[in-house]
Amino acid sequence: MPNTMQAVVKAEPAPGIELREVPVPAPAAGEVLVRVQAASVCGTDLHIYEWDPWAKGRIHPPLIPGHEFSGAVAAVGRGVTTVREGDLVSAEMHVACGKCLQCRTGLAHVCQHVRILGVDADGAFASYAIIPESNIWKLPNAIPHDYASLLDPLGNAVHTVLAGPIAAKSVAVTGCGAIGLMSIAVAKACGAARVYAIEVNAHRRAVAAQMGADLALDPNTDNVESLVREATDGTGVDVLLEMSGHPEAMRLGFALLRTGGRASLLGIPSRPFELDFARDIIFKGATVQGINGRKMFETWFQMEALLATGKLNLEPVITHRLKLSEFKRAMELLHSGDAIKVVMRPE
Amino acid sequence: MPNTMQAVVKAEPAPGIELREVPVPAPAAGEVLVRVQAASVCGTDLHIYEWDPWAKGRIHPPLIPGHEFSGAVAAVGRGVTTVREGDLVSAEMHVACGKCLQCRTGLAHVCQHVRILGVDADGAFASYAIIPESNIWKLPNAIPHDYASLLDPLGNAVHTVLAGPIAAKSVAVTGCGAIGLMSIAVAKACGAARVYAIEVNAHRRAVAAQMGADLALDPNTDNVESLVREATDGTGVDVLLEMSGHPEAMRLGFALLRTGGRASLLGIPSRPFELDFARDIIFKGATVQGINGRKMFETWFQMEALLATGKLNLEPVITHRLKLSEFKRAMELLHSGDAIKVVMRPE
Amino acid sequence: MPNTMQAVVKAEPAPGIELREVPVPAPAAGEVLVRVQAASVCGTDLHIYEWDPWAKGRIHPPLIPGHEFSGAVAAVGRGVTTVREGDLVSAEMHVACGKCLQCRTGLAHVCQHVRILGVDADGAFASYAIIPESNIWKLPNAIPHDYASLLDPLGNAVHTVLAGPIAAKSVAVTGCGAIGLMSIAVAKACGAARVYAIEVNAHRRAVAAQMGADLALDPNTDNVESLVREATDGTGVDVLLEMSGHPEAMRLGFALLRTGGRASLLGIPSRPFELDFARDIIFKGATVQGINGRKMFETWFQMEALLATGKLNLEPVITHRLKLSEFKRAMELLHSGDAIKVVMRPE
Amino acid sequence: MPNTMQAVVKAEPAPGIELREVPVPAPAAGEVLVRVQAASVCGTDLHIYEWDPWAKGRIHPPLIPGHEFSGAVAAVGRGVTTVREGDLVSAEMHVACGKCLQCRTGLAHVCQHVRILGVDADGAFASYAIIPESNIWKLPNAIPHDYASLLDPLGNAVHTVLAGPIAAKSVAVTGCGAIGLMSIAVAKACGAARVYAIEVNAHRRAVAAQMGADLALDPNTDNVESLVREATDGTGVDVLLEMSGHPEAMRLGFALLRTGGRASLLGIPSRPFELDFARDIIFKGATVQGINGRKMFETWFQMEALLATGKLNLEPVITHRLKLSEFKRAMELLHSGDAIKVVMRPE
Repeated sequence: MPNTMQAVVKAEPAPGIELREVPVPAPAAGEVLVRVQAASVCGTDLHIYEWDPWAKGRIHPPLIPGHEFSGAVAAVGRGVTTVREGDLVSAEMHVACGKCLQCRTGLAHVCQHVRILGVDADGAFASYAIIPESNIWKLPNAIPHDYASLLDPLGNAVHTVLAGPIAAKSVAVTGCGAIGLMSIAVAKACGAARVYAIEVNAHRRAVAAQMGADLALDPNTDNVESLVREATDGTGVDVLLEMSGHPEAMRLGFALLRTGGRASLLGIPSRPFELDFARDIIFKGATVQGINGRKMFETWFQMEALLATGKLNLEPVITHRLKLSEFKRAMELLHSGDAIKVVMRPE
Repeated sequence: MPNTMQAVVKAEPAPGIELREVPVPAPAAGEVLVRVQAASVCGTDLHIYEWDPWAKGRIHPPLIPGHEFSGAVAAVGRGVTTVREGDLVSAEMHVACGKCLQCRTGLAHVCQHVRILGVDADGAFASYAIIPESNIWKLPNAIPHDYASLLDPLGNAVHTVLAGPIAAKSVAVTGCGAIGLMSIAVAKACGAARVYAIEVNAHRRAVAAQMGADLALDPNTDNVESLVREATDGTGVDVLLEMSGHPEAMRLGFALLRTGGRASLLGIPSRPFELDFARDIIFKGATVQGINGRKMFETWFQMEALLATGKLNLEPVITHRLKLSEFKRAMELLHSGDAIKVVMRPE
Repeated sequence: MPNTMQAVVKAEPAPGIELREVPVPAPAAGEVLVRVQAASVCGTDLHIYEWDPWAKGRIHPPLIPGHEFSGAVAAVGRGVTTVREGDLVSAEMHVACGKCLQCRTGLAHVCQHVRILGVDADGAFASYAIIPESNIWKLPNAIPHDYASLLDPLGNAVHTVLAGPIAAKSVAVTGCGAIGLMSIAVAKACGAARVYAIEVNAHRRAVAAQMGADLALDPNTDNVESLVREATDGTGVDVLLEMSGHPEAMRLGFALLRTGGRASLLGIPSRPFELDFARDIIFKGATVQGINGRKMFETWFQMEALLATGKLNLEPVITHRLKLSEFKRAMELLHSGDAIKVVMRPE
Repeated sequence: MPNTMQAVVKAEPAPGIELREVPVPAPAAGEVLVRVQAASVCGTDLHIYEWDPWAKGRIHPPLIPGHEFSGAVAAVGRGVTTVREGDLVSAEMHVACGKCLQCRTGLAHVCQHVRILGVDADGAFASYAIIPESNIWKLPNAIPHDYASLLDPLGNAVHTVLAGPIAAKSVAVTGCGAIGLMSIAVAKACGAARVYAIEVNAHRRAVAAQMGADLALDPNTDNVESLVREATDGTGVDVLLEMSGHPEAMRLGFALLRTGGRASLLGIPSRPFELDFARDIIFKGATVQGINGRKMFETWFQMEALLATGKLNLEPVITHRLKLSEFKRAMELLHSGDAIKVVMRPE
């Protein structure tokens, strides 16, 4: 075990980020030290990099970001019993308090006092990361590290898709970022009859088709509502998976939803927006679900089962593989919209 | 059986309504003729009376309005087997098509081709009314006619309250019209721990307390959010029953809802409005349900069981009892806001 | 339209069955006359043929059996609006009363007064069959007639599999008759992680593998409990689909079920049997579901969606295709255990 | 804080139990020392006292039994943050491992490696008891200690009653021991329409009526099935709460259950027994739930809400109040069947 390691560090309350050599942390009681083998970049990391208003309000430098990763256990603290050195692992990076009403009633994913590693404390953009044992997810060998580094966003997708019945259902996915794209593959693997992907970016529409979308529509040029109505015999879709957070897309998604349907909302709108509640929710008898994080740990069992039995091909969403030291290029690729998922490897 | 009867008739596409002597209709095959013994006035009837834009778009005079009533079977058409002359009955006035996806999957209350008696065809503001056998609800003797004439709005309340777990839950009811008030009594009868009623009208707040509300708050003068947070140890309520359709009330209701809570929306907003979806639904992991009508006929079994075992005191919401011939006064009372429920009796 | 037709008739209260020329029936109001194009043989038909104690107690000859079929609409009675001549159709052969508690609360599949066509009234082993419009299921062109004649048992399988979460679950199927085998395909199409098939008949185990079973085990020679425990890391399966009705198989199935799992029981045991309720259900916190028929008509929508999008290959279960006139051979094949599904075609 | 305390100790692997003066234990990190103010006696304690086969196989003396209690925090170990000295508390005595599949998916109440305080480690029949912080339940002042000492069995009742819809339902309770009796009160408080209690012991039937049962029937002398059918218009009950574990009672309970009903089984049969699965579960489309322990901690929130708002009168089930030193009399009272709940107080 070396004494120091490479880490990507948000050092100052200002735009930018830098590569540093920092001490390898030691696991305290109940903690696990993981040697990072793959770490993926999320939009949140870009917010931290660009130091946008959200980042200014939430992040306290210095901080090592990164909350999507996998690796091998390098050392365990006192009392750790469920993993040992060498085990392949990923981790749920939302550390729940375990004491609030939500934590005590099966809703730890919306814990009132959640602390996110990579946001509120050091994360995984480094050669090593410290994770509480309770948040470690031990991996079967069948899951490759690149995929395992995507369990956080894949978990969002799985949580959203499986928040209600999906088998034999018609589904609209509004927004084909990484999570939207993965939700297409998850829905199809779980028996969705037809998936209609709605996305403005042509490359992402092409990837949507690769992930299994039956139709990939451009809301700027296609008459989406008319095409989806036609494809569903005038009924509308059974399920809306809202992955964009964009008001126009959300309104379109609700317009596509059939009477009595389910709308599961994961995309985060940046501000309040107008919806016709009477038409789109109330008269429709719709069920609308706010989705956040991953169920701890039901979603993780589901993901593992789907991945380990080969039901999900995530390859199309991994558009770039870089070294951890190339993190600035990763940020630029993400910023430009050219990348979907960038997986980085510490050297 | 007389040849003619008293009926309140919307005769012209214009404001107003009139009392007429019209022929008593004869029940066709599969239909039931009911002698009306009590009929209640709904806000919808007021829209028809006042000939507002909704009424102009939907109503085709001449029409006998009225969709809340009870009575006794006077005659049955060919093939009717489930009731006979003299049986006490009320009726579900939403006539579902029985053939659409929704009707065939347990969602007849949001039938795509619903026809409402008293809106799309003649209703119950008359001495006799014609009802399809499938929509008749036979009453046990234990339920008095005045209460039985309220099964339509009571059914809205029961449908909303029982759309999710209610026992041992804390509940906010936004809007204390007749349905909001009845939902308080239903929630308490079904084990709700505490009910917080939110209503601007002082008289209705007083009735809310009679119906069982633990606190009745005025959003114009009380700091509702702070008082409800305090009463719930800072958590917020488990369940929101939205009965107002008013954007301010809906936003307040969502603010009161705890993380992981349920919001059941029955009130109809008259236009699109802005909501902070990120804060109020998505991060909160909330479940939002659009509620419409009554489940056919699960809600009816529930209502009957609650009423027949004496669990609901509806007396406080019946503020006026009039003759059918006093229908204009009924409309005025409702318009003024002085009345909650007006029950009319044909002579 | 001819005046007479071929029909397989149970003519006498005694073993056997015979081919007769009988009048083509005329559809009454609300009825549909279907020209049968494929009809499948069920174990129930064999009971009727062999005149076993169940048949003696239930069947009133003369009767045309047969309740699994598809065909084309030949004529419609008065008032029929949802299909017309030439439409391809199958049908739900459980005719529910529409008036009992179960029918009025979404449980028509367990109607208290159900009447089964092919059992309590004439069925489909004939050139033509009469079906109430409400029970007709209009088929998309994408579904071939042989498959469409299997919608009744396929519906049993779909109903059982989708009676709870199945995606990402481990599943044991005890009993690989036609419905058990189809349930394997349905479970895999709906995202089941692994399916363990348990069946004594070697041919059926081979078909189970073709339908997608990950392991097909013989309870007579394999240590099923130990093998399934090992395959599930000692946990047991998430879901038991009981398709045999055999006490030994049911006890084995419960032994395989993990704590907190779901057991959906479709197979009909012929007599009461002993189970260790404390160990197998109560301490285990298991959920046990009795499954009967198909949900009207949610299951039908699900089946159609799965079949029309090519998710189910039913070919391996159709072991024989015969002419309707070869019905005796069909009975013998079924009796011998050599056949799984025999599809017959009227000439 | 004294150095020693009174404790009831199972000292030897033989019948009997004795009062001893033992050291007051000190709370380790994460543990809470509670001064016991009320402790109730459970049938399990009687098994331990009498040293029956179950006790022989499970209990390792010396052991302080007792798993139903309440008290005040006397001291807290390092790291304890959620309670402090003087807080009134009770506790969930099932200590879940937190690491198995069940614990990680919201089913900690059926943890694969559960350890029960008072059974597998020292419990509460003493002046002081040690409890892990995670299992402590902080009490509002509104709940008296006698009631608070009953939260364990009350939790069984609440868990069983609220395992499915109960409002407006008809309910049969088979077996009116303490938990059965409390389940009657819980069901009524949560809106059950009618509760039919079935119990052979006349005193318990009388208490059942006090708890709110609409009918209390003696299966030895009443024709229970006929009376309940009549009371439910021939339909049978919507919900069976099985609290006896007695095969005859279970078979009767299933016979009473309506088609499509829910059977929640808490009573533990002492051996396998015969049931007619075809008639009682499968054709009936019944849902059967094995119920164990209390949901951690959803059931606790529900109990607290019901008790704190005065919805439950538990007084009738507390038949005896003794000093802890009178534990032998408590055992005898329980053994004789004269007692329902005996609450003991350390001096």
